[in-house]
Amino acid sequence: MENNKLNRRQLVTLIGGLAGAGAAATLYAATGDVAAPKPSITAPSKPASAMQQVPWPYKPVDADVVAQRAYESYWKGHCMYGSFEAIVATVAGHLGEPYTNFPYMMFKYGAGGVNGWGTLCGSLNGSLSAIQLLSPDPNPIIDNLMAWYEVEPLPNFYAKGAKFPEVRSAAGTPLCHESIAHWCKASGKKSYSPERIERCGTLTASVARKTVQLLNDQAAGKHLTVLAQSKQTQSCSVCHEHGGELENMRAKMDCGGCHQVQIKSGHGVI
Amino acid sequence: MENNKLNRRQLVTLIGGLAGAGAAATLYAATGDVAAPKPSITAPSKPASAMQQVPWPYKPVDADVVAQRAYESYWKGHCMYGSFEAIVATVAGHLGEPYTNFPYMMFKYGAGGVNGWGTLCGSLNGSLSAIQLLSPDPNPIIDNLMAWYEVEPLPNFYAKGAKFPEVRSAAGTPLCHESIAHWCKASGKKSYSPERIERCGTLTASVARKTVQLLNDQAAGKHLTVLAQSKQTQSCSVCHEHGGELENMRAKMDCGGCHQVQIKSGHGVI
Repeated sequence: MENNKLNRRQLVTLIGGLAGAGAAATLYAATGDVAAPKPSITAPSKPASAMQQVPWPYKPVDADVVAQRAYESYWKGHCMYGSFEAIVATVAGHLGEPYTNFPYMMFKYGAGGVNGWGTLCGSLNGSLSAIQLLSPDPNPIIDNLMAWYEVEPLPNFYAKGAKFPEVRSAAGTPLCHESIAHWCKASGKKSYSPERIERCGTLTASVARKTVQLLNDQAAGKHLTVLAQSKQTQSCSVCHEHGGELENMRAKMDCGGCHQVQIKSGHGVI
Repeated sequence: MENNKLNRRQLVTLIGGLAGAGAAATLYAATGDVAAPKPSITAPSKPASAMQQVPWPYKPVDADVVAQRAYESYWKGHCMYGSFEAIVATVAGHLGEPYTNFPYMMFKYGAGGVNGWGTLCGSLNGSLSAIQLLSPDPNPIIDNLMAWYEVEPLPNFYAKGAKFPEVRSAAGTPLCHESIAHWCKASGKKSYSPERIERCGTLTASVARKTVQLLNDQAAGKHLTVLAQSKQTQSCSVCHEHGGELENMRAKMDCGGCHQVQIKSGHGVI
Protein backbone atom coordinates (compact mmCIF):
# COMPACT_ATOMS: atom_id res chain seq x y z
CA MET A 1 0.00 0.00 0.00
CA GLU A 2 2.82 2.36 0.80
CA ASN A 3 4.27 1.85 -2.69
CA ASN A 4 0.91 2.50 -4.30
CA LYS A 5 0.62 5.69 -2.35
CA LEU A 6 4.02 6.78 -3.44
CA ASN A 7 3.20 6.01 -7.05
CA ARG A 8 0.01 8.02 -6.92
CA ARG A 9 1.89 11.10 -6.02
CA GLN A 10 4.07 13.34 -8.08
CA LEU A 11 6.75 15.69 -6.97
CA VAL A 12 5.89 19.24 -7.80
CA THR A 13 8.04 22.22 -7.25
CA LEU A 14 6.50 25.10 -5.41
CA ILE A 15 7.83 28.57 -5.36
CA GLY A 16 9.35 28.31 -1.94
CA GLY A 17 11.17 31.56 -1.80
CA LEU A 18 11.29 33.39 1.48
CA ALA A 19 8.26 35.57 1.98
CA GLY A 20 8.96 38.71 3.86
CA ALA A 21 12.51 38.36 2.71
CA GLY A 22 13.43 41.84 3.80
CA ALA A 23 14.21 42.21 7.47
CA ALA A 24 13.48 38.58 8.28
CA ALA A 25 15.96 37.20 5.78
CA THR A 26 18.79 38.97 7.50
CA LEU A 27 18.28 36.54 10.37
CA TYR A 28 19.24 33.68 8.13
CA ALA A 29 22.62 32.38 7.14
CA ALA A 30 22.32 31.59 3.46
CA THR A 31 25.51 29.62 3.27
CA GLY A 32 23.98 26.15 3.45
CA ASP A 33 26.42 25.38 6.26
CA VAL A 34 24.49 23.31 8.79
CA ALA A 35 27.28 22.91 11.30
CA ALA A 36 26.17 23.82 14.82
CA PRO A 37 26.98 27.49 15.34
CA LYS A 38 28.94 28.62 18.36
CA PRO A 39 26.98 30.07 21.28
CA SER A 40 26.16 33.70 20.75
CA ILE A 41 27.89 36.12 23.06
CA THR A 42 25.44 38.93 22.36
CA ALA A 43 22.24 37.05 23.18
CA PRO A 44 22.20 37.51 26.97
CA SER A 45 21.71 41.26 26.57
CA LYS A 46 18.36 40.80 24.83
CA PRO A 47 15.28 41.82 26.84
CA ALA A 48 12.77 39.18 27.89
CA SER A 49 10.22 40.54 25.44
CA ALA A 50 12.46 39.38 22.57
CA MET A 51 11.15 35.91 23.37
CA GLN A 52 7.62 37.00 22.50
CA GLN A 53 8.52 38.03 18.97
CA VAL A 54 7.70 35.36 16.36
CA PRO A 55 9.70 34.16 14.51
CA TRP A 56 12.72 33.79 16.72
CA PRO A 57 16.04 34.31 14.93
CA TYR A 58 17.00 31.01 13.36
CA LYS A 59 20.41 29.79 12.30
CA PRO A 60 20.92 26.38 10.69
CA VAL A 61 21.64 23.51 13.06
CA ASP A 62 22.79 19.94 12.48
CA ALA A 63 19.74 17.82 11.58
CA ASP A 64 21.29 14.51 12.69
CA VAL A 65 22.30 15.93 16.07
CA VAL A 66 18.77 17.24 16.58
CA ALA A 67 17.34 13.86 15.56
CA GLN A 68 19.39 12.03 18.17
CA ARG A 69 18.34 14.57 20.80
CA ALA A 70 14.69 14.10 19.77
CA TYR A 71 14.98 10.37 20.35
CA GLU A 72 16.39 10.93 23.81
CA SER A 73 13.82 13.63 24.66
CA TYR A 74 11.02 11.29 23.54
CA TRP A 75 11.77 9.08 26.52
CA LYS A 76 11.42 12.09 28.84
CA GLY A 77 8.21 13.65 27.53
CA HIS A 78 6.91 11.61 24.56
CA CYS A 79 6.65 12.47 20.89
CA MET A 80 5.44 16.08 20.73
CA TYR A 81 7.77 17.20 23.48
CA GLY A 82 10.58 15.17 21.90
CA SER A 83 10.51 16.81 18.50
CA PHE A 84 9.81 20.33 19.77
CA GLU A 85 12.37 20.29 22.56
CA ALA A 86 15.11 18.87 20.35
CA ILE A 87 14.65 21.52 17.67
CA VAL A 88 13.86 24.61 19.73
CA ALA A 89 16.12 23.96 22.72
CA THR A 90 19.01 23.40 20.30
CA VAL A 91 18.33 26.74 18.64
CA ALA A 92 17.70 28.44 22.00
CA GLY A 93 20.98 27.04 23.30
CA HIS A 94 22.76 29.05 20.65
CA LEU A 95 20.63 32.16 21.18
CA GLY A 96 20.96 32.21 24.98
CA GLU A 97 18.65 34.14 27.33
CA PRO A 98 15.71 34.76 27.27
CA TYR A 99 15.02 32.02 24.68
CA THR A 100 16.22 29.24 26.96
CA ASN A 101 13.30 29.85 29.32
CA PHE A 102 10.60 28.26 27.19
CA PRO A 103 8.33 25.85 29.14
CA TYR A 104 9.03 22.81 26.97
CA MET A 105 7.08 20.34 29.09
CA MET A 106 3.83 22.00 28.03
CA PHE A 107 3.99 19.77 24.94
CA LYS A 108 3.73 16.51 26.79
CA TYR A 109 0.00 16.45 25.97
CA GLY A 110 0.63 15.55 22.32
CA ALA A 111 1.59 11.96 23.17
CA GLY A 112 -0.31 9.38 21.15
CA GLY A 113 -2.16 12.01 19.14
CA VAL A 114 -3.20 13.92 22.31
CA ASN A 115 -3.00 11.80 25.45
CA GLY A 116 -3.74 8.62 23.49
CA TRP A 117 -6.69 9.96 21.49
CA GLY A 118 -5.03 9.02 18.20
CA THR A 119 -5.48 12.36 16.42
CA LEU A 120 -2.56 14.40 15.00
CA CYS A 121 0.79 12.60 15.31
CA GLY A 122 2.63 14.21 18.21
CA SER A 123 5.99 14.27 16.46
CA LEU A 124 4.31 16.38 13.77
CA ASN A 125 2.50 18.60 16.28
CA GLY A 126 5.77 19.41 18.05
CA SER A 127 7.62 20.01 14.82
CA LEU A 128 4.85 22.24 13.52
CA SER A 129 5.04 24.38 16.66
CA ALA A 130 8.78 24.68 16.11
CA ILE A 131 8.33 25.64 12.46
CA GLN A 132 5.88 28.41 13.28
CA LEU A 133 8.19 29.67 16.03
CA LEU A 134 11.36 29.66 13.91
CA SER A 135 10.40 30.35 10.30
CA PRO A 136 9.49 33.70 8.73
CA ASP A 137 7.47 31.78 6.10
CA PRO A 138 6.18 28.64 7.84
CA ASN A 139 3.39 27.48 5.53
CA PRO A 140 5.55 25.98 2.73
CA ILE A 141 7.52 24.05 5.34
CA ILE A 142 4.35 22.87 7.09
CA ASP A 143 2.78 21.63 3.85
CA ASN A 144 6.00 19.94 2.84
CA LEU A 145 6.36 18.14 6.16
CA MET A 146 2.74 16.99 6.32
CA ALA A 147 2.70 15.64 2.76
CA TRP A 148 6.04 13.92 3.29
CA TYR A 149 4.82 12.26 6.49
CA GLU A 150 1.82 10.74 4.73
CA VAL A 151 3.82 8.78 2.18
CA GLU A 152 7.39 8.39 3.41
CA PRO A 153 8.29 4.96 4.84
CA LEU A 154 9.22 5.85 8.43
CA PRO A 155 11.14 5.80 10.74
CA ASN A 156 14.11 6.58 8.52
CA PHE A 157 16.48 7.64 11.30
CA TYR A 158 17.65 4.96 13.69
CA ALA A 159 18.99 6.55 16.82
CA LYS A 160 21.84 5.40 18.99
CA GLY A 161 20.33 3.38 21.79
CA ALA A 162 17.50 1.87 19.74
CA LYS A 163 17.61 -1.90 20.11
CA PHE A 164 14.89 -3.40 17.90
CA PRO A 165 15.15 -4.18 14.17
CA GLU A 166 14.26 -1.43 11.70
CA VAL A 167 10.75 -1.63 10.24
CA ARG A 168 9.43 1.18 8.06
CA SER A 169 5.88 1.99 6.96
CA ALA A 170 3.98 4.92 5.45
CA ALA A 171 1.29 6.40 7.68
CA GLY A 172 -1.22 7.28 4.94
CA THR A 173 -2.40 10.33 6.92
CA PRO A 174 -0.94 12.69 9.53
CA LEU A 175 -2.98 10.91 12.21
CA CYS A 176 -1.38 8.93 15.03
CA HIS A 177 -3.70 5.93 15.15
CA GLU A 178 -3.44 5.19 11.47
CA SER A 179 0.32 5.67 11.52
CA ILE A 180 0.50 3.07 14.29
CA ALA A 181 -1.91 0.70 12.53
CA HIS A 182 0.18 0.71 9.35
CA TRP A 183 3.36 0.10 11.28
CA CYS A 184 1.78 -2.77 13.23
CA LYS A 185 0.78 -4.34 9.93
CA ALA A 186 4.28 -3.94 8.49
CA SER A 187 6.10 -5.19 11.59
CA GLY A 188 3.72 -7.83 12.90
CA LYS A 189 4.06 -6.19 16.33
CA LYS A 190 1.29 -4.99 18.59
CA SER A 191 0.37 -1.37 19.25
CA TYR A 192 1.38 -1.44 22.91
CA SER A 193 4.51 -3.56 22.37
CA PRO A 194 8.00 -2.35 23.37
CA GLU A 195 8.89 -2.39 19.66
CA ARG A 196 6.09 0.05 18.76
CA ILE A 197 6.94 2.32 21.68
CA GLU A 198 10.57 2.46 20.54
CA ARG A 199 9.43 2.99 16.95
CA CYS A 200 7.59 6.15 17.97
CA GLY A 201 10.89 7.38 19.41
CA THR A 202 12.76 6.82 16.16
CA LEU A 203 9.79 8.28 14.29
CA THR A 204 10.08 11.40 16.46
CA ALA A 205 13.77 11.57 15.58
CA SER A 206 12.97 11.13 11.87
CA VAL A 207 10.33 13.89 11.81
CA ALA A 208 12.54 16.29 13.80
CA ARG A 209 15.39 15.65 11.35
CA LYS A 210 13.20 16.33 8.33
CA THR A 211 11.90 19.51 9.96
CA VAL A 212 15.41 20.83 10.55
CA GLN A 213 16.41 19.96 6.99
CA LEU A 214 13.47 22.02 5.72
CA LEU A 215 14.23 24.94 8.05
CA ASN A 216 17.85 24.85 6.92
CA ASP A 217 16.84 24.68 3.25
CA GLN A 218 14.57 27.67 3.62
CA ALA A 219 17.23 29.59 5.52
CA ALA A 220 19.61 28.88 2.65
CA GLY A 221 17.09 30.27 0.17
CA LYS A 222 16.42 26.92 -1.49
CA HIS A 223 13.14 26.15 -3.20
CA LEU A 224 11.00 23.64 -1.30
CA THR A 225 9.28 20.73 -3.00
CA VAL A 226 5.88 19.53 -1.78
CA LEU A 227 4.32 16.20 -2.68
CA ALA A 228 1.09 16.69 -4.60
CA GLN A 229 -2.20 15.28 -3.32
CA SER A 230 -3.15 11.83 -4.59
CA LYS A 231 -5.39 11.71 -7.65
CA GLN A 232 -8.05 10.15 -5.46
CA THR A 233 -8.03 13.13 -3.09
CA GLN A 234 -7.94 15.56 -5.98
CA SER A 235 -11.04 13.83 -7.30
CA CYS A 236 -12.82 14.18 -3.94
CA SER A 237 -11.91 17.86 -3.85
CA VAL A 238 -13.69 18.61 -7.12
CA CYS A 239 -17.04 18.41 -5.32
CA HIS A 240 -16.19 18.80 -1.64
CA GLU A 241 -13.53 21.54 -1.56
CA HIS A 242 -13.48 25.27 -2.23
CA GLY A 243 -15.59 26.13 -5.27
CA GLY A 244 -17.01 22.62 -5.60
CA GLU A 245 -20.71 21.88 -5.93
CA LEU A 246 -20.95 20.75 -2.31
CA GLU A 247 -18.10 22.76 -0.74
CA ASN A 248 -18.62 21.09 2.62
CA MET A 249 -15.00 20.26 3.43
CA ARG A 250 -11.71 21.93 4.20
CA ALA A 251 -8.76 19.57 4.22
CA LYS A 252 -5.43 18.90 2.54
CA MET A 253 -4.96 15.47 4.12
CA ASP A 254 -5.39 12.33 2.06
CA CYS A 255 -9.06 11.22 1.99
CA GLY A 256 -8.20 7.60 1.23
CA GLY A 257 -6.36 7.24 4.50
CA CYS A 258 -9.70 6.79 6.29
CA HIS A 259 -12.46 6.76 3.70
CA GLN A 260 -11.44 3.97 1.31
CA VAL A 261 -14.70 2.09 1.63
CA GLN A 262 -16.85 5.19 1.26
CA ILE A 263 -14.95 5.98 -1.90
CA LYS A 264 -15.14 2.44 -3.30
CA SER A 265 -18.83 2.07 -2.55
CA GLY A 266 -19.80 5.25 -4.34
CA HIS A 267 -20.08 7.29 -1.16
CA GLY A 268 -21.62 6.45 2.16
CA VAL A 269 -22.04 8.53 5.25
CA ILE A 270 -20.26 11.74 6.10
CA MET B 1 -26.92 12.12 13.86
CA GLU B 2 -25.79 14.41 16.66
CA ASN B 3 -28.70 13.27 18.79
CA ASN B 4 -27.92 9.63 18.10
CA LYS B 5 -24.37 10.24 19.18
CA LEU B 6 -25.51 11.90 22.34
CA ASN B 7 -27.85 9.03 23.11
CA ARG B 8 -25.13 6.45 22.66
CA ARG B 9 -23.09 8.00 25.37
CA GLN B 10 -23.46 7.93 29.09
CA LEU B 11 -22.13 10.25 31.70
CA VAL B 12 -19.74 8.52 33.98
CA THR B 13 -18.01 9.98 36.93
CA LEU B 14 -14.29 9.60 37.12
CA ILE B 15 -12.19 10.10 40.14
CA GLY B 16 -10.89 13.47 39.12
CA GLY B 17 -9.06 14.42 42.25
CA LEU B 18 -5.90 16.41 41.99
CA ALA B 19 -2.88 14.22 41.43
CA GLY B 20 0.28 15.53 42.93
CA ALA B 21 -1.90 17.41 45.33
CA GLY B 22 0.96 18.22 47.63
CA ALA B 23 3.12 21.14 46.57
CA ALA B 24 1.19 21.77 43.37
CA ALA B 25 -2.15 22.16 45.09
CA THR B 26 -0.85 25.08 47.08
CA LEU B 27 -0.81 27.02 43.82
CA TYR B 28 -4.56 26.72 43.57
CA ALA B 29 -7.29 28.71 45.14
CA ALA B 30 -9.89 26.14 46.17
CA THR B 31 -12.60 28.68 46.84
CA GLY B 32 -14.53 28.20 43.61
CA ASP B 33 -14.42 31.97 43.16
CA VAL B 34 -13.89 32.58 39.46
CA ALA B 35 -13.76 36.36 39.60
CA ALA B 36 -10.70 37.75 37.85
CA PRO B 37 -7.98 38.16 40.46
CA LYS B 38 -6.16 41.44 40.86
CA PRO B 39 -2.72 41.72 39.23
CA SER B 40 -0.05 40.24 41.44
CA ILE B 41 2.40 42.71 42.88
CA THR B 42 4.95 40.02 43.74
CA ALA B 43 5.23 38.46 40.27
CA PRO B 44 7.81 40.84 38.74
CA SER B 45 10.46 39.60 41.18
CA LYS B 46 10.33 36.08 39.77
CA PRO B 47 13.34 34.99 37.74
CA ALA B 48 12.94 34.27 34.03
CA SER B 49 13.47 30.56 34.64
CA ALA B 50 10.15 30.46 36.54
CA MET B 51 8.55 30.53 33.10
CA GLN B 52 10.16 27.23 32.23
CA GLN B 53 8.55 25.36 35.13
CA VAL B 54 5.41 23.44 34.14
CA PRO B 55 2.73 23.85 35.36
CA TRP B 56 2.59 27.59 35.79
CA PRO B 57 0.75 28.75 38.89
CA TYR B 58 -2.95 28.90 38.01
CA LYS B 59 -5.70 30.86 39.67
CA PRO B 60 -9.30 30.68 38.46
CA VAL B 61 -10.31 33.21 35.84
CA ASP B 62 -13.69 34.20 34.40
CA ALA B 63 -14.64 31.70 31.68
CA ASP B 64 -16.98 34.06 29.84
CA VAL B 65 -14.40 36.83 29.74
CA VAL B 66 -11.83 34.39 28.34
CA ALA B 67 -14.37 33.17 25.77
CA GLN B 68 -14.97 36.68 24.47
CA ARG B 69 -11.22 37.28 24.28
CA ALA B 70 -10.80 33.99 22.38
CA TYR B 71 -13.31 35.15 19.80
CA GLU B 72 -11.43 38.40 19.31
CA SER B 73 -8.03 36.68 19.22
CA TYR B 74 -9.34 34.23 16.61
CA TRP B 75 -9.53 37.09 14.14
CA LYS B 76 -5.88 37.92 14.81
CA GLY B 77 -4.29 34.47 14.64
CA HIS B 78 -7.00 31.86 13.97
CA CYS B 79 -8.38 29.10 16.17
CA MET B 80 -5.37 27.57 17.95
CA TYR B 81 -3.85 30.95 18.69
CA GLY B 82 -7.27 32.25 19.71
CA SER B 83 -7.99 29.69 22.40
CA PHE B 84 -4.43 29.49 23.73
CA GLU B 85 -3.81 33.23 23.83
CA ALA B 86 -7.12 33.97 25.52
CA ILE B 87 -6.54 31.45 28.30
CA VAL B 88 -2.82 31.79 28.90
CA ALA B 89 -2.42 35.53 28.34
CA THR B 90 -5.28 36.12 30.78
CA VAL B 91 -3.52 34.02 33.41
CA ALA B 92 -0.13 35.53 32.55
CA GLY B 93 -1.62 39.00 32.87
CA HIS B 94 -2.33 38.25 36.51
CA LEU B 95 1.05 36.59 37.10
CA GLY B 96 3.14 39.33 35.49
CA GLU B 97 6.75 38.92 34.32
CA PRO B 98 8.25 36.64 33.08
CA TYR B 99 5.03 34.82 32.10
CA THR B 100 3.83 37.64 29.85
CA ASN B 101 6.72 37.00 27.45
CA PHE B 102 5.33 33.83 25.88
CA PRO B 103 5.52 33.83 22.04
CA TYR B 104 1.79 33.35 21.47
CA MET B 105 1.91 33.71 17.68
CA MET B 106 3.73 30.37 17.45
CA PHE B 107 0.27 28.76 17.55
CA LYS B 108 -0.97 30.29 14.34
CA TYR B 109 -0.11 27.02 12.57
CA GLY B 110 -3.09 25.19 14.09
CA ALA B 111 -5.57 26.99 11.84
CA GLY B 112 -7.92 24.64 9.99
CA GLY B 113 -6.46 21.55 11.66
CA VAL B 114 -2.86 22.62 10.82
CA ASN B 115 -2.70 25.17 8.01
CA GLY B 116 -5.87 23.80 6.41
CA TRP B 117 -4.94 20.11 6.58
CA GLY B 118 -8.12 19.28 8.50
CA THR B 119 -6.52 17.26 11.31
CA LEU B 120 -6.92 18.15 15.01
CA CYS B 121 -9.32 21.08 15.58
CA GLY B 122 -7.15 24.11 16.31
CA SER B 123 -9.35 25.40 19.11
CA LEU B 124 -8.72 22.07 20.84
CA ASN B 125 -5.00 22.09 20.07
CA GLY B 126 -4.60 25.53 21.63
CA SER B 127 -6.70 24.65 24.65
CA LEU B 128 -4.77 21.42 25.17
CA SER B 129 -1.48 23.34 25.18
CA ALA B 130 -2.95 25.66 27.78
CA ILE B 131 -4.18 22.76 29.92
CA GLN B 132 -0.77 21.09 29.97
CA LEU B 133 0.86 24.42 30.80
CA LEU B 134 -1.53 25.35 33.61
CA SER B 135 -2.73 22.14 35.26
CA PRO B 136 -0.84 19.92 37.72
CA ASP B 137 -3.00 16.99 36.56
CA PRO B 138 -3.83 17.67 32.90
CA ASN B 139 -4.98 14.27 31.64
CA PRO B 140 -8.46 14.21 33.23
CA ILE B 141 -9.11 17.68 31.81
CA ILE B 142 -7.80 16.69 28.38
CA ASP B 143 -9.98 13.58 28.22
CA ASN B 144 -12.99 15.51 29.42
CA LEU B 145 -12.56 18.26 26.83
CA MET B 146 -11.95 15.88 23.93
CA ALA B 147 -14.97 13.69 24.71
CA TRP B 148 -17.17 16.74 25.23
CA TYR B 149 -16.09 18.23 21.89
CA GLU B 150 -17.09 15.08 20.01
CA VAL B 151 -20.73 15.14 21.09
CA GLU B 152 -21.64 18.63 22.27
CA PRO B 153 -23.66 20.75 19.82
CA LEU B 154 -21.30 23.69 19.23
CA PRO B 155 -20.72 26.63 19.19
CA ASN B 156 -22.53 27.22 22.47
CA PHE B 157 -21.04 30.64 23.20
CA TYR B 158 -22.06 33.47 20.93
CA ALA B 159 -19.61 36.30 21.25
CA LYS B 160 -20.27 40.01 21.08
CA GLY B 161 -19.58 41.06 17.53
CA ALA B 162 -20.82 37.86 15.89
CA LYS B 163 -23.41 38.75 13.27
CA PHE B 164 -24.77 35.52 11.78
CA PRO B 165 -27.58 33.33 13.21
CA GLU B 166 -26.65 30.63 15.71
CA VAL B 167 -26.32 27.12 14.26
CA ARG B 168 -25.02 24.29 16.42
CA SER B 169 -23.73 20.84 15.45
CA ALA B 170 -21.74 18.02 17.04
CA ALA B 171 -18.38 17.30 15.41
CA GLY B 172 -18.38 13.52 15.87
CA THR B 173 -14.57 13.51 16.27
CA PRO B 174 -11.90 15.97 17.43
CA LEU B 175 -10.92 16.53 13.78
CA CYS B 176 -11.36 19.85 12.03
CA HIS B 177 -12.61 18.69 8.66
CA GLU B 178 -15.36 16.54 10.07
CA SER B 179 -16.37 19.26 12.52
CA ILE B 180 -16.76 21.61 9.56
CA ALA B 181 -18.61 19.04 7.44
CA HIS B 182 -21.19 18.45 10.18
CA TRP B 183 -21.71 22.15 10.68
CA CYS B 184 -22.12 22.72 6.93
CA LYS B 185 -24.80 20.03 6.88
CA ALA B 186 -26.62 21.58 9.86
CA SER B 187 -26.43 25.15 8.57
CA GLY B 188 -26.72 24.67 4.84
CA LYS B 189 -23.70 26.95 4.47
CA LYS B 190 -20.49 26.25 2.59
CA SER B 191 -17.13 25.48 4.16
CA TYR B 192 -15.46 28.66 2.94
CA SER B 193 -18.48 30.91 3.58
CA PRO B 194 -18.32 33.93 5.90
CA GLU B 195 -20.79 32.14 8.17
CA ARG B 196 -18.48 29.13 8.61
CA ILE B 197 -15.47 31.36 9.21
CA GLU B 198 -17.36 33.23 11.92
CA ARG B 199 -18.61 29.93 13.35
CA CYS B 200 -15.02 28.80 13.90
CA GLY B 201 -14.52 31.99 15.92
CA THR B 202 -17.49 31.28 18.18
CA LEU B 203 -16.38 27.64 18.35
CA THR B 204 -12.97 28.83 19.54
CA ALA B 205 -14.70 30.92 22.19
CA SER B 206 -16.84 27.93 23.24
CA VAL B 207 -13.89 25.56 23.57
CA ALA B 208 -11.82 28.13 25.47
CA ARG B 209 -14.73 28.68 27.87
CA LYS B 210 -15.15 24.96 28.51
CA THR B 211 -11.41 24.63 29.09
CA VAL B 212 -11.40 27.39 31.69
CA GLN B 213 -14.44 25.88 33.39
CA LEU B 214 -12.57 22.58 33.70
CA LEU B 215 -9.39 24.26 34.96
CA ASN B 216 -11.44 26.16 37.51
CA ASP B 217 -13.29 23.02 38.58
CA GLN B 218 -10.05 21.15 39.09
CA ALA B 219 -8.53 24.08 40.96
CA ALA B 220 -11.57 24.03 43.25
CA GLY B 221 -11.04 20.32 43.93
CA LYS B 222 -14.20 19.23 42.12
CA HIS B 223 -14.54 15.80 40.55
CA LEU B 224 -14.51 15.88 36.75
CA THR B 225 -16.98 13.92 34.64
CA VAL B 226 -15.89 12.41 31.31
CA LEU B 227 -18.26 11.16 28.63
CA ALA B 228 -17.84 7.43 28.03
CA GLN B 229 -16.90 6.11 24.61
CA SER B 230 -19.80 5.08 22.37
CA LYS B 231 -20.80 1.42 22.47
CA GLN B 232 -19.69 1.16 18.86
CA THR B 233 -16.18 2.31 19.72
CA GLN B 234 -16.08 0.09 22.79
CA SER B 235 -16.95 -2.80 20.50
CA CYS B 236 -14.10 -1.92 18.10
CA SER B 237 -11.71 -1.74 21.03
CA VAL B 238 -12.37 -5.31 22.08
CA CYS B 239 -10.23 -6.57 19.17
CA HIS B 240 -8.16 -3.54 18.15
CA GLU B 241 -7.11 -1.94 21.44
CA HIS B 242 -4.78 -2.91 24.26
CA GLY B 243 -5.10 -6.60 25.10
CA GLY B 244 -7.34 -7.34 22.12
CA GLU B 245 -6.70 -10.16 19.67
CA LEU B 246 -5.35 -7.77 17.04
CA GLU B 247 -4.05 -4.92 19.26
CA ASN B 248 -3.15 -2.83 16.23
CA MET B 249 -4.65 0.48 17.34
CA ARG B 250 -4.21 3.16 19.97
CA ALA B 251 -7.02 5.68 20.08
CA LYS B 252 -9.69 7.10 22.34
CA MET B 253 -11.48 9.01 19.57
CA ASP B 254 -14.79 7.79 18.21
CA CYS B 255 -14.27 5.21 15.42
CA GLY B 256 -17.68 5.87 13.86
CA GLY B 257 -16.74 9.46 13.10
CA CYS B 258 -14.81 8.26 10.04
CA HIS B 259 -15.29 4.52 9.70
CA GLN B 260 -19.08 4.08 9.56
CA VAL B 261 -19.03 2.19 6.28
CA GLN B 262 -16.18 -0.07 7.31
CA ILE B 263 -18.12 -0.92 10.43
CA LYS B 264 -21.44 -1.48 8.64
CA SER B 265 -19.89 -3.61 5.91
CA GLY B 266 -18.25 -5.97 8.33
CA HIS B 267 -14.84 -4.38 8.02
CA GLY B 268 -12.97 -3.20 4.99
CA VAL B 269 -9.53 -1.73 4.66
CA ILE B 270 -7.39 -0.36 7.45
